[in-house]
Amino acid sequence: MNYAAIYHRPESEMAFLYDAKTMRIRLRTAKDDVEKVELLHGDPYSLRSLAGIRPPFYTQPTAMKKILSDDLFDYWQIAVTEPKKRLAYAFTIIGVDGTHIIYTDRGFIDPDDKKQLEDMNTYFRMPFFQEIDAFYAPEWVKKTIWYQIFPERFANGDKTNDPASTKAWDPDTRPGRQDFYGGDLQGVLDHLDHLQKLGVNGIYFNPLFKAPSNHKYDTEDYYQIDPHFGDARLFKKVVREAHKRGIRVMLDAVFNHIGDKSPQWQDVLKNGKDSRYSGWFHINKFPATYTQTDNFEFTPDATYDTFDYTPHMPKLNTASQEVQDYLLGIAKYWVENFDIDAWRLDVANEIDHHFWRRFHQEMVALKPDFYILGEIWHTSQAWLNGDEFSGVMNYSYTTAILHHFINHELSSNQMIEQLSTQLMKYRDQTNQMMFNVLDSHDTARIMTLAHNNVDLVQQTFAFTFLQPGVPSIYYGTEYGMTGENDPDCRKPMNWHPDGKAKQIFAFFQQLNELRRQNWQLLSEGELSLQVLKNGLIEVRRQFNGRELVGLFNTSNQTVTIDGNGQEVLSQNYEGRQLTQDGFLIYRK
Amino acid sequence: MNYAAIYHRPESEMAFLYDAKTMRIRLRTAKDDVEKVELLHGDPYSLRSLAGIRPPFYTQPTAMKKILSDDLFDYWQIAVTEPKKRLAYAFTIIGVDGTHIIYTDRGFIDPDDKKQLEDMNTYFRMPFFQEIDAFYAPEWVKKTIWYQIFPERFANGDKTNDPASTKAWDPDTRPGRQDFYGGDLQGVLDHLDHLQKLGVNGIYFNPLFKAPSNHKYDTEDYYQIDPHFGDARLFKKVVREAHKRGIRVMLDAVFNHIGDKSPQWQDVLKNGKDSRYSGWFHINKFPATYTQTDNFEFTPDATYDTFDYTPHMPKLNTASQEVQDYLLGIAKYWVENFDIDAWRLDVANEIDHHFWRRFHQEMVALKPDFYILGEIWHTSQAWLNGDEFSGVMNYSYTTAILHHFINHELSSNQMIEQLSTQLMKYRDQTNQMMFNVLDSHDTARIMTLAHNNVDLVQQTFAFTFLQPGVPSIYYGTEYGMTGENDPDCRKPMNWHPDGKAKQIFAFFQQLNELRRQNWQLLSEGELSLQVLKNGLIEVRRQFNGRELVGLFNTSNQTVTIDGNGQEVLSQNYEGRQLTQDGFLIYRK
Repeated sequence: MNYAAIYHRPESEMAFLYDAKTMRIRLRTAKDDVEKVELLHGDPYSLRSLAGIRPPFYTQPTAMKKILSDDLFDYWQIAVTEPKKRLAYAFTIIGVDGTHIIYTDRGFIDPDDKKQLEDMNTYFRMPFFQEIDAFYAPEWVKKTIWYQIFPERFANGDKTNDPASTKAWDPDTRPGRQDFYGGDLQGVLDHLDHLQKLGVNGIYFNPLFKAPSNHKYDTEDYYQIDPHFGDARLFKKVVREAHKRGIRVMLDAVFNHIGDKSPQWQDVLKNGKDSRYSGWFHINKFPATYTQTDNFEFTPDATYDTFDYTPHMPKLNTASQEVQDYLLGIAKYWVENFDIDAWRLDVANEIDHHFWRRFHQEMVALKPDFYILGEIWHTSQAWLNGDEFSGVMNYSYTTAILHHFINHELSSNQMIEQLSTQLMKYRDQTNQMMFNVLDSHDTARIMTLAHNNVDLVQQTFAFTFLQPGVPSIYYGTEYGMTGENDPDCRKPMNWHPDGKAKQIFAFFQQLNELRRQNWQLLSEGELSLQVLKNGLIEVRRQFNGRELVGLFNTSNQTVTIDGNGQEVLSQNYEGRQLTQDGFLIYRK
Repeated sequence: MNYAAIYHRPESEMAFLYDAKTMRIRLRTAKDDVEKVELLHGDPYSLRSLAGIRPPFYTQPTAMKKILSDDLFDYWQIAVTEPKKRLAYAFTIIGVDGTHIIYTDRGFIDPDDKKQLEDMNTYFRMPFFQEIDAFYAPEWVKKTIWYQIFPERFANGDKTNDPASTKAWDPDTRPGRQDFYGGDLQGVLDHLDHLQKLGVNGIYFNPLFKAPSNHKYDTEDYYQIDPHFGDARLFKKVVREAHKRGIRVMLDAVFNHIGDKSPQWQDVLKNGKDSRYSGWFHINKFPATYTQTDNFEFTPDATYDTFDYTPHMPKLNTASQEVQDYLLGIAKYWVENFDIDAWRLDVANEIDHHFWRRFHQEMVALKPDFYILGEIWHTSQAWLNGDEFSGVMNYSYTTAILHHFINHELSSNQMIEQLSTQLMKYRDQTNQMMFNVLDSHDTARIMTLAHNNVDLVQQTFAFTFLQPGVPSIYYGTEYGMTGENDPDCRKPMNWHPDGKAKQIFAFFQQLNELRRQNWQLLSEGELSLQVLKNGLIEVRRQFNGRELVGLFNTSNQTVTIDGNGQEVLSQNYEGRQLTQDGFLIYRK
């Protein structure tokens, strides 16, 4: 048996409260190396028997279930409870080679080593079930299908607030990096019915606050809706009208850096070290300067820390109490006065954990069900322990999916392995909160990546909607819009769909309906991922005796299905034949 | 190569800021399986080259050093910096079998896979060096040798405050569980010179607050010094006089539970659900009751959560804001008004992390150098990330040491493996803050465990003083006091040492002097642990070109040493011969 592969980490994604009374415990072993894992568990204090009065430590070892596997490991899981809320545990492991060993907080011990087994300090511990420390996943998020709006390009509802140089609204244009098209909040308000008809129930807005650029990531005033988009009164109306339709609203918070046109940075430029804002930034040497280059986004020699190498986005010093108060004031302002439901945090990984913990505390104090979504592209365990973010933009998911479904760089098995690796990095309820993007304002559109293969795009979305994370649709995807990398992926929305676009819209209506009808099963249900003998990818979701199964043909051959059940949604499926890019979702 | 054994976890004990500008990075591989590990590292943004202007991602792979090994793994470490404070990294691993692979945030990739290597999202990340998130280790703690005082048994300086049933002060007595001997704070004050002469510079007091028992863990009033010990004015004087002598003071905080004689619990008993304190506890069913048994410490059927099964210690609900404010008020009171330097936290693992984060924040706001020591018996990673505790009672250390030096249940190699496993569970600066106890009021005294073998006890302490953690001496150990498990280990202090006791005292003076003179080397220096060919255990500590080496003969044979250097302290050493229980510490 490969002892060195066996891993468990107490109070982490491998041992966590799922709800107030239930702990879920995981064990990792080398792939195909272990026959059986059982959990020994009980109240640690019952072990220290005084005069034989106390009960034995544990009664029955409980079998753990192998839930997922990746290229190197098998993952085992179990749910347990304990009346006194204190748990000591260890794992009995039986290898395929017959090895029998107990894995404890003190390492591996022999099943016959009574002395160590009777010592309560041998065991892993969940010292007390503390609900306050548990990761909390708001129910509404599990029901949500996000729709991402890049405001400058969604709809122009009010021509009076257009920027001076506004270009004609042409969905087939190739936008320039600095172009304006006049999209605004009145446009959003005018099209809320479109969203309702589509069946989404959450809007994720790219930045709305006053900023010089079209993307608004270079914030000038966090307290003002950009005048080209509208004003506070109009935004309040958008939120109210969205809420009336059961649609939640998420804003984009750019707290890592501020625009260099902001009064704070301007004050630093003017007054240098004597500026009352000099402590708000990371200035390594006064004066704050940089060398102009042809490339306005690349300045290697700025004397202050910036986002990326961009001199126009000086990094904020979030360790400063004043900056914290300022940013949290903003965060609270938009919740208290406009009733938003969620913040998406830009460049979230480059801001300190202290700040995010305060942020979390203050947001859930205002709205216990608040959703906090971090933009992090790499492994995010450090932010997802329950006291910072609810979830992150799930780019690892995106990568695995695109590399199989769209590019065919990964085999079905490899994709499943990568998805499993990712799922096992986080608690179950965290996985339910992940934001499963397929494309966005930062990437090429999936329709373009798929070379305009509508069936392939729809198949990929169908697979995504069966995963535990929250799906998201980037504006225009419902009409099959195309676009290369930024800025091409930010074309003006197509408000004149042709027949093909309308068919795509109808498909997304069905898919959204499927997700909303089965939200609890698809969010909380058990997940099984595997490649069947005929090469089909099978996704099974089970919850309280109900089951949905998805079969996906990602090969270039037609395959026959011998499964049964009540068909719920399908594509390229006829007479038990699933052709290329086809899928079948059925209820068992 | 054993891929499944290879492990790294970003933003953990395997990737942490050691100081504002330096990160330390670790990798774990299977034992004796890997030839060489190199770190690829650089600024992630430099990778996304725009028009070829940007510098390459990393210049030179940097070799990592194999620092420690245990039974299953080798541990590699390196220190790196990065001018822009943003780091992306991966590991090049060359196996003893010739395998050459790169280990990244996306798993293992081939060194020839240019596409993945050029993608910044392939790498592990330290997104920004945030000093505010780093684990901070106060310098004074590194210089400290703790001396633990169980106040009821250290010295009776004031007979007027003795409990009614006070017994005669007899160091050879076997104390009963409920006995009183009259020890008090005047006794401590009278003997501060003794501590100074001994060379310790920190007092860890067992509880001093008003409580019915002799051990005072059943607090009745957190704001009052127990009248049998003295009063607030006297305690203030003790702290002042200790500080004058360079001695710091740590108090014992019992915040997990409160005594059932406390006004809060009494109010609950009286008013039940209507008590204004009903939310202060975890009451599962009103009224709060339990069945009386012969064993006053064991009540399996209490209708409220307790410490252990002890009905007299109802558990406090630290998720309640009111309880938090109450306990933090106490914690602050003793710092602000009495200038204490540290809190030792009783049953720290059963209180929630939210509470401890608030506790940490409020304590370091009062004293930036405050030391917070948790009582946790198992793996404590969840509390030692820099925002809760400074260190824990290092019982894993105790166990490994006792099982080799004292019991000979572990071989030298096994002990070194266990110590290495423990050291690799925590950041380097955390290891410097660990409280390395050999015995205490909760265990048998080490002299008794060692069957009165003074040389063996001294050898064990000498080994302990060479480790990075902070050593502690339990009162009376300096005179060789004995005692079985509690309550026998709580005998009245022997204030009339015989010749043998005086020799032991002289030894501890030398050892304390050695530690204080070499505090930085012994706390921060590199550590190497190994068993030499002749069976001696070798401890090497290196810092800034200075080096101390310790050799320990834990066999029952005499061995010859061929090392050289300037002798600093030794025992059972003569003419290059180290006999049983002997040790030699020398400077290279």
